[in-house]
Amino acid sequence: MTARSCLSIILAAGEGTRMKSALPKVLHKIAGLPMVAHVTRAAEAAGAGDLALVIGHGAEQMREAAASFAPRAETFVQAERLGTGHAVLSARSAIERGYDDILVMFGDTPLVDAEALLAARRKLADGAAVVVVGFRPPNPAGYGRLIEKDGELIAIREDKDCTDEERRIGFCNSGLMAIAGKHALSLLDKVGNDNAKGEYYLTDVVEIAHAAGLKVVATEASYDSVLGINNRAELAEAEAIWQKRKRREVMLSGVTMISPETVFFSHDTEIDPDVLIEPNVYFGSGVAVASGAIIHAFSHLEGANVGPRAEIGPFARLRPGANLHEKAKVGNFCEVKKATIEAGAKVNHLTYIGDARVGPGANIGAGTITCNYDGYSKFFTDIGAGAFIGSNSSLVAPIMIGDRAYIASGSVVTENVPEDALAFGRARQKTLPERAKQLRERRASAAKK
Amino acid sequence: MTARSCLSIILAAGEGTRMKSALPKVLHKIAGLPMVAHVTRAAEAAGAGDLALVIGHGAEQMREAAASFAPRAETFVQAERLGTGHAVLSARSAIERGYDDILVMFGDTPLVDAEALLAARRKLADGAAVVVVGFRPPNPAGYGRLIEKDGELIAIREDKDCTDEERRIGFCNSGLMAIAGKHALSLLDKVGNDNAKGEYYLTDVVEIAHAAGLKVVATEASYDSVLGINNRAELAEAEAIWQKRKRREVMLSGVTMISPETVFFSHDTEIDPDVLIEPNVYFGSGVAVASGAIIHAFSHLEGANVGPRAEIGPFARLRPGANLHEKAKVGNFCEVKKATIEAGAKVNHLTYIGDARVGPGANIGAGTITCNYDGYSKFFTDIGAGAFIGSNSSLVAPIMIGDRAYIASGSVVTENVPEDALAFGRARQKTLPERAKQLRERRASAAKK
Amino acid sequence: MTARSCLSIILAAGEGTRMKSALPKVLHKIAGLPMVAHVTRAAEAAGAGDLALVIGHGAEQMREAAASFAPRAETFVQAERLGTGHAVLSARSAIERGYDDILVMFGDTPLVDAEALLAARRKLADGAAVVVVGFRPPNPAGYGRLIEKDGELIAIREDKDCTDEERRIGFCNSGLMAIAGKHALSLLDKVGNDNAKGEYYLTDVVEIAHAAGLKVVATEASYDSVLGINNRAELAEAEAIWQKRKRREVMLSGVTMISPETVFFSHDTEIDPDVLIEPNVYFGSGVAVASGAIIHAFSHLEGANVGPRAEIGPFARLRPGANLHEKAKVGNFCEVKKATIEAGAKVNHLTYIGDARVGPGANIGAGTITCNYDGYSKFFTDIGAGAFIGSNSSLVAPIMIGDRAYIASGSVVTENVPEDALAFGRARQKTLPERAKQLRERRASAAKK
Repeated sequence: MTARSCLSIILAAGEGTRMKSALPKVLHKIAGLPMVAHVTRAAEAAGAGDLALVIGHGAEQMREAAASFAPRAETFVQAERLGTGHAVLSARSAIERGYDDILVMFGDTPLVDAEALLAARRKLADGAAVVVVGFRPPNPAGYGRLIEKDGELIAIREDKDCTDEERRIGFCNSGLMAIAGKHALSLLDKVGNDNAKGEYYLTDVVEIAHAAGLKVVATEASYDSVLGINNRAELAEAEAIWQKRKRREVMLSGVTMISPETVFFSHDTEIDPDVLIEPNVYFGSGVAVASGAIIHAFSHLEGANVGPRAEIGPFARLRPGANLHEKAKVGNFCEVKKATIEAGAKVNHLTYIGDARVGPGANIGAGTITCNYDGYSKFFTDIGAGAFIGSNSSLVAPIMIGDRAYIASGSVVTENVPEDALAFGRARQKTLPERAKQLRERRASAAKK
Repeated sequence: MTARSCLSIILAAGEGTRMKSALPKVLHKIAGLPMVAHVTRAAEAAGAGDLALVIGHGAEQMREAAASFAPRAETFVQAERLGTGHAVLSARSAIERGYDDILVMFGDTPLVDAEALLAARRKLADGAAVVVVGFRPPNPAGYGRLIEKDGELIAIREDKDCTDEERRIGFCNSGLMAIAGKHALSLLDKVGNDNAKGEYYLTDVVEIAHAAGLKVVATEASYDSVLGINNRAELAEAEAIWQKRKRREVMLSGVTMISPETVFFSHDTEIDPDVLIEPNVYFGSGVAVASGAIIHAFSHLEGANVGPRAEIGPFARLRPGANLHEKAKVGNFCEVKKATIEAGAKVNHLTYIGDARVGPGANIGAGTITCNYDGYSKFFTDIGAGAFIGSNSSLVAPIMIGDRAYIASGSVVTENVPEDALAFGRARQKTLPERAKQLRERRASAAKK
Repeated sequence: MTARSCLSIILAAGEGTRMKSALPKVLHKIAGLPMVAHVTRAAEAAGAGDLALVIGHGAEQMREAAASFAPRAETFVQAERLGTGHAVLSARSAIERGYDDILVMFGDTPLVDAEALLAARRKLADGAAVVVVGFRPPNPAGYGRLIEKDGELIAIREDKDCTDEERRIGFCNSGLMAIAGKHALSLLDKVGNDNAKGEYYLTDVVEIAHAAGLKVVATEASYDSVLGINNRAELAEAEAIWQKRKRREVMLSGVTMISPETVFFSHDTEIDPDVLIEPNVYFGSGVAVASGAIIHAFSHLEGANVGPRAEIGPFARLRPGANLHEKAKVGNFCEVKKATIEAGAKVNHLTYIGDARVGPGANIGAGTITCNYDGYSKFFTDIGAGAFIGSNSSLVAPIMIGDRAYIASGSVVTENVPEDALAFGRARQKTLPERAKQLRERRASAAKK
């Protein structure tokens, strides 16, 4: 297959009004990645060396997004919306460069997989001029039916034009199509708009090719893989299918999930075997978890590295740049951002660690805050190996706490503390006997008046 | 329809022993609202101008609750539990006032919708004397079957009395009934109790009316809409159906939910289009969220207003009276109660803001606490525009922090701070070199002894 | 049944390579309890007075674990893995002691229930020599079929050896078997290994017994109860079935769960009637909740006692040793560990209470931390009845706060406070007019350079 050149043309010009959104439909996300980016990835996985993105609605936003998720893609603007055939020809200059295989894909089918595309490309390699990807929906009513005869596809029949017999066919048109590059332009140019809506329908290519004596065939893809998204309920369904697949894959690789349906992965989450994930865990993008780690319930991770046998949560939040080394612990109601928690260090309760290093074996008491922001800039906190930070302390950055230093509970620390030193920064307690009682009585008598 | 007067009689006298609860069954909640309140709302939506609530078990609690969820409802006590026919006649004085339409409804069918009721009322308007609302359960065994002939309903046959042919009928009695007001009392008074249990069955009205030459017909409602709740497992099922409907409605209106099945709405939640809701969000009653807002995972909102493009969570709690203006942010492990967070202000981490105003653009550092309660009363904290509250500060209310004022980290602030002033209230740090080491060695030698 | 002695032989020697785990397969947990411990409990519930655990892979870990979850079990090592018949005979010395009934069970079927086992034992009591437990899977392909004739079981036929007619049989072999003790050894010793794999198959016992003129019968168990676990996806399925059963049982006993599918119980969780559990609650092991308590959303409990009408969460964590008396409250972002919260005491926000007693009616302000650890040892904090702890205070243990004492907000308390006394330990505020403005201007001019 690698010997054959391939162009993927991805139609992504539609407005998607049923999404009711300011954002172009295909930029809505599945697993943290825009739908259309899932499609470009499938195209690349199926060997498409070049990508042509046909855009229209929200063209500026689309171009900007594409530059990030598919920097190699060329964009083509379809100025008027005159049907799928017209949309494909928006990328005429790309087609003219000449490719063995052309894949026509859709930006709103985020679950498309390389399997289906490769199957279609193989049929082109075997001599077909056009390959239509079909599928079998639970209820075919409303879909175009694939009319086959002697192993060839002779027509795609719209539901309303079907005979009773044809309507019983369960094999339907997904829209996905592979076209031999050498025939592509001549076939596409013959598509007319002599129909009720005055649109150019890509599906007409089937009968045109068939009439020209070219071989047209169908391949079958799974229902999920061709699912098109038109509103946010369907978006959520596609997300659910994606998550279900990923969870199963993760479990079969040796990860325990007590309640997989409550764990949400991102498109790029990496979990090693023998990790335990409790219920209700959310992985934003950019997270990797090493073997033996435990992610307790109600944890939220994003852009974080969790080292071997580290322990997170419950109720922990790791933000981008959190980097936990072996056996590090981040416990309940703790937030870690742009900070390395070195081997065996403990950040167990009600703590904010931002822009910091916590040295190996250090112990951070409950309620500790790294005061990393002075209203203008962010500053770094460096906590040495084996340091002990007493509970409810404020470490005012920039600051350095030496190895094995000891900070008394409730201290505000503003100056560096050398290794092995003890620091405190808190007021002396004063106790006034009977004073609480007097206050209470004064209050009570005031209330009476 | 509005031209016809309508009384809804809602039967809610039963004990509901299978709920195993001290609370009367119909006061158990769906989406934060008592089941029977869902029923009164459906009645009102179907045009019932008057409501008669037939109560019995827990009458005092019922009266009190009704005063809040349906202040216009009259209550009638059914002292003895002698069957549904008897229950309806507990509201005899209301019926005697004369209505065009009488709807007999049940307090334990919280998913009943106005559609089914309006369909029944239309049949009364078309001349029927009695309309029975039927439904088609997945398995009809055990239900009374609706025996129809020539478009009329001639009998409701108990399952045990059915012939084999009748048992194959899938159309069953839901209990819901509409009766023409002018016939209601004469029909109801003819219901006898000459049966095994000695009870007055409302269903007898069908044969009585039929025998009197009056027109009796059936209408069909969905299975869900007539679902009766008898134990807490069924209560949870009804809640699940309600939530599923609401989620779909919210998504179709343009709201993105990554995992709709983990988002819980209240009966009165209002979400504008283009809001993003991450997994695991709980909406208590009285929440409204404006367009462009983001509700991150693990957030809990109740009685709160979330302004346009505001951002909440993860792990945020908004309590009643939280009012977030445009682009305000409330981040992880933060609680906001009776407080306005003005435009662009940030409350990002581990903070309690209660009884307060946070001015536009103010920045509240991690670990800040508004000390709003002195053990006797609650006091107000006013934080000015652009103020900066250093991390781990305690603001002892009543207190006013001026515009652009600056509070140093770790301060306890007890006196007002003028605008543009800097305040601190923390002890000076003392550092004792080698002291941590000495302590460690002393400990170690003590442990050896 | 109690009159008959019974030995349960539980096969648990396999490696479970598809789990991809360092932990032996049967030690993976369902509801916080190893799979094999669920099996030993079912055996005990079915009256097995003695347990023989056949181990092999990870024998050391297995022995250690068994000592804790089934201290009465004897372990037998199956050195080589030569088939189920061989595995059972690893426990030969136990069988030789003589039992009326022998149950052959599997360590990887955690949902097995006493019902199925008791049904098999009853058939032994009625004269059968061998009883095979069958089940009806949704799709029987691949399973051995139970071939019955005249009420007796004459063979277990492997799928591949079935005639077309036999293949239509839906009744399949679960593996579970009951054998009359007096015939057990003679039957088992006749099992040969003259087959393709050279293994000893326990299922051969059926034809051997039949040939010997002994009575062999089948009983039917539910599909779930015989589900064998081979990978972590199946483990999660079994967990889901277990949770679903438990949730239903809990609801029917009178507990309200708004969203039961988001509540996770442990094998030993005890919830009294009329408790309300909101969505997303996680019960680790050792939790009991008394009537009238409310567990708000996003709560995590382990080893905790929740008293009558106590209130927990949202976002609360109770760790082992948390003991809440009547009407105690633990609110958002609070952690309680080894601490008693006495009647009506409130720990409402952002607080850590560890190794402590909070007296009745005491009020713990937001951000309070008990500083229970000095880096070497844990110390106790005792807070008296009706005490008021101001927000953001640090209580440095060991410490005693007397009844009705009052701690000012933001204090670090290091010395005992007598009853009725007021204590504060915080610095006096200093306010520098215009200083914030000057700092801002200096910053701005520095940024320009």
